[in-house]
Amino acid sequence: MASASRAATPPLKDELDIVIPTIRNLDFLEMWRPFFQPYHLIIVQDGDPSKTIRVPEGFDYELYNRNDINRMLGPKASCISFKDSACRCFGYMVSKKKYIYTIDDDCFVAKDPSGKDINALEQHIKNLLSPSTPFFFNTLYDPYRDGADFVRGYPFSLREGVPTAVSHGLWLNIPDYDAPTQLVKPLERNTRYVDAILTIPKGTLFPMCGMNLAFDRELIGPAMYFGLMGDGQPIGRYDDMWAGWCTKVITDHLGLGVKTGLPYIWHSKASNPFVNLKKEYNGIFWQEELIPFFQSVSLPKDATTVQKCYLELAKQVRAKLGKVDGYFNKLADSMVTWIEAWDELNPPKGGVATANGPSKK
Amino acid sequence: MASASRAATPPLKDELDIVIPTIRNLDFLEMWRPFFQPYHLIIVQDGDPSKTIRVPEGFDYELYNRNDINRMLGPKASCISFKDSACRCFGYMVSKKKYIYTIDDDCFVAKDPSGKDINALEQHIKNLLSPSTPFFFNTLYDPYRDGADFVRGYPFSLREGVPTAVSHGLWLNIPDYDAPTQLVKPLERNTRYVDAILTIPKGTLFPMCGMNLAFDRELIGPAMYFGLMGDGQPIGRYDDMWAGWCTKVITDHLGLGVKTGLPYIWHSKASNPFVNLKKEYNGIFWQEELIPFFQSVSLPKDATTVQKCYLELAKQVRAKLGKVDGYFNKLADSMVTWIEAWDELNPPKGGVATANGPSKK
Repeated sequence: MASASRAATPPLKDELDIVIPTIRNLDFLEMWRPFFQPYHLIIVQDGDPSKTIRVPEGFDYELYNRNDINRMLGPKASCISFKDSACRCFGYMVSKKKYIYTIDDDCFVAKDPSGKDINALEQHIKNLLSPSTPFFFNTLYDPYRDGADFVRGYPFSLREGVPTAVSHGLWLNIPDYDAPTQLVKPLERNTRYVDAILTIPKGTLFPMCGMNLAFDRELIGPAMYFGLMGDGQPIGRYDDMWAGWCTKVITDHLGLGVKTGLPYIWHSKASNPFVNLKKEYNGIFWQEELIPFFQSVSLPKDATTVQKCYLELAKQVRAKLGKVDGYFNKLADSMVTWIEAWDELNPPKGGVATANGPSKK
Repeated sequence: MASASRAATPPLKDELDIVIPTIRNLDFLEMWRPFFQPYHLIIVQDGDPSKTIRVPEGFDYELYNRNDINRMLGPKASCISFKDSACRCFGYMVSKKKYIYTIDDDCFVAKDPSGKDINALEQHIKNLLSPSTPFFFNTLYDPYRDGADFVRGYPFSLREGVPTAVSHGLWLNIPDYDAPTQLVKPLERNTRYVDAILTIPKGTLFPMCGMNLAFDRELIGPAMYFGLMGDGQPIGRYDDMWAGWCTKVITDHLGLGVKTGLPYIWHSKASNPFVNLKKEYNGIFWQEELIPFFQSVSLPKDATTVQKCYLELAKQVRAKLGKVDGYFNKLADSMVTWIEAWDELNPPKGGVATANGPSKK
C-alpha cells in the first residue's frame, strides 16, 4: 500500500454513531450484534410515533420519533421528511460524533468469497481513514490498500491524496435498482463480489445509495440532507440520490474525496416495484434535468465551508430548478432550514448555543 | 445486463490483428497458442534488424524490422521509435483490421479465481463490443455485463452509452510500477483479482499501460501513437502513457469511451528498476507538467476526426510544452509526421493512395 495509509484500523468507538431509520426487523440488530454492539446507535423512527420500536438488550441507543423531532426543531422540523426513511438525516444532525455509518434494516451481514462474515463497519472506517485520489485514475484501484500502490505514470505530486469524506458501500443479493428495472428483471441478483474500492473522480457524479453508507460528519455532514420525501411530497426514493449529488459537487469544490466499492452488505429483500414506481416516477423525469444542473453547478471561491456551499447550492436550486417543478422551490427552502437547524444543534466550537439549540435535547 | 449488450461474443477473426513488439521468449506464443492462433499477428522487431525472430509453426504472421519500416515510410520513419517497444505503433498503422490487441512478450495466460485460463482476447472483444458510460458513474461497474445493470438514480437518457474505443486490461503478479516504486517495493506482487470492468469517466485521465491493451482502430487508431522513445531520445517507458493521455482527451472530445479492468494477464517478470529509472527520470519530472496540460487541453468543435484532433493536440504540445523541454518540439513534429504516415498507409475509403502509400508494401 502507498505510505499515506494507516496500517491498523482503530475501532473509533467514541468517534462513530450508527444511524438507522426505523427497525422493523428484530433479526437485524441480532445479526449485526458482534459488529454494532460496541457503538452507539441513533434510531430515527420514520412513521407513527405511537408505535414502539423494540431494541434488543445490550445495545446503547437513543431513539427519536416525530414528536421528538418536532419538539427539538420547532418550526424547523418541516425540513425533516415524515413517513420516509429520508428522516434518517435527523440522526446525522443530532449526532455529536466525527463519523456516521447509516444502514437500512433489511441489510444483513454478507460473506466474502472465502465464506467469512464481512465487518462492513471496519471496512468503511478503513476507507474513511485512508486518502482519496480524485484527480487522476489509478488502474489498480485504491492505492492505499495492502498489496496495491500507484501505477507507473501516476504523477508523484498527487500521491498524497486528499481526505476522504464519504465511503459508499455496495450490496450483494438484491441490487439497488429503480422500479422500471425491478419490473423488467425481477429475478436479477447481484452475486458478483468485486474486491475493489475506488475514488470517484472529480467532476463525475454517481448515484449514492443510503443503504450502506459512511461519512465524515465533520468534513461533509451538513451536505448530507436527504431532502423532502414521503408524506405530502410528490417524490420518494430520491433522498440519498439528492444527498449524493449535493455532496459530490461540494466535495469536489472543497478538495475532498468520495470512495465506492467495498464493503458489501447482504440486501435481503426487494421493495415492491409498483409502490416504488409511484414514488419514483416524478424523479425519473426530473433527474434528466437534475443531472445537467449538478454537472454544471459552479460554487464561488468564497464558499469555503460545507454550510456556505450548501446555501449557495440552495440558491441555485431555486433559480434553476424552480421552473422544472414548484417542488424544487420548497426543497430549496428546506435546504436553508436544514442548515439553520444543523447550526443550531451544532454551534461552532467555542460558540454559544442559541435558545432553540442543544439545550432542548 | 443492460439491453445494449450483445449476448454472444463474435470471435472477430477477420477483424482483429494482434500486435507484438519483438518476441524474445519462445514460450510466449506457445502459451497463447489456443487463443492467438486463429488471429493474424503483426510483430514489430524493436532492435537490431539483423537478428532473427523465431515464430513457432502454425501462426499466421507478418514481421517488420527497422529496414522494413525505413523502406515503407521513407523519411517519415523518423516518427517510429528505435530500440524501444514503442515501435509497436507501426503495427497499428500497417494493420488493415478494425480492432487491435497488443501485448508484451513477458505477459502470459493468467488464471481466474476458479483456476481457469483467462482468454484475455475474448474479454477485450466483449469490452469493445459493449458500450461505455463516461458521463455518469455506475456503482455496480459495467452495466452491460451479465448480472449487472444501471442502478437506481442513473439517468435513463444516458443508458444507451457511447461506443467503446479502448479496452485497458490489467496484470496479475508483477504490477506495472514505476522505477521508484519498484525500488521501494521489490517484492510486491498483485494477487488481487478484481472482477470488474468500468468506464473511465469523461474528463478523467488515467495511466494507460500498453502491456495488455485493445482498441478500435477505426474509432481511435491515429491517436495511438507511442511517441519517440528509446535510441537517441531522453525518455523511455512513457510511450503508452503518452498515447493514453492523447487518446483519453480525444475520446472525451469525440464522445467515445475507455474501459479498464478485466481481462488480466500474468506479467511474468519485472524489468530492471535501475535501467527503468534511467529511462524514466525525465518523464517523472515532465509528467508533473504534462498532466495539467492534458487536463486543460480544449479541442475545437471543428476537430471532428481523430486526425484533426491529433494535429490540433500536436500544435498545443509545441505551444505549451516546448518550454518544458526541447524534446516536446521534436515530439510535436513527430506527431504530425505520424498522422501523415498514417494517412498515407490508410487512405480514406474511396480515396487514391499516394506515391509513398501502401503500394510500397
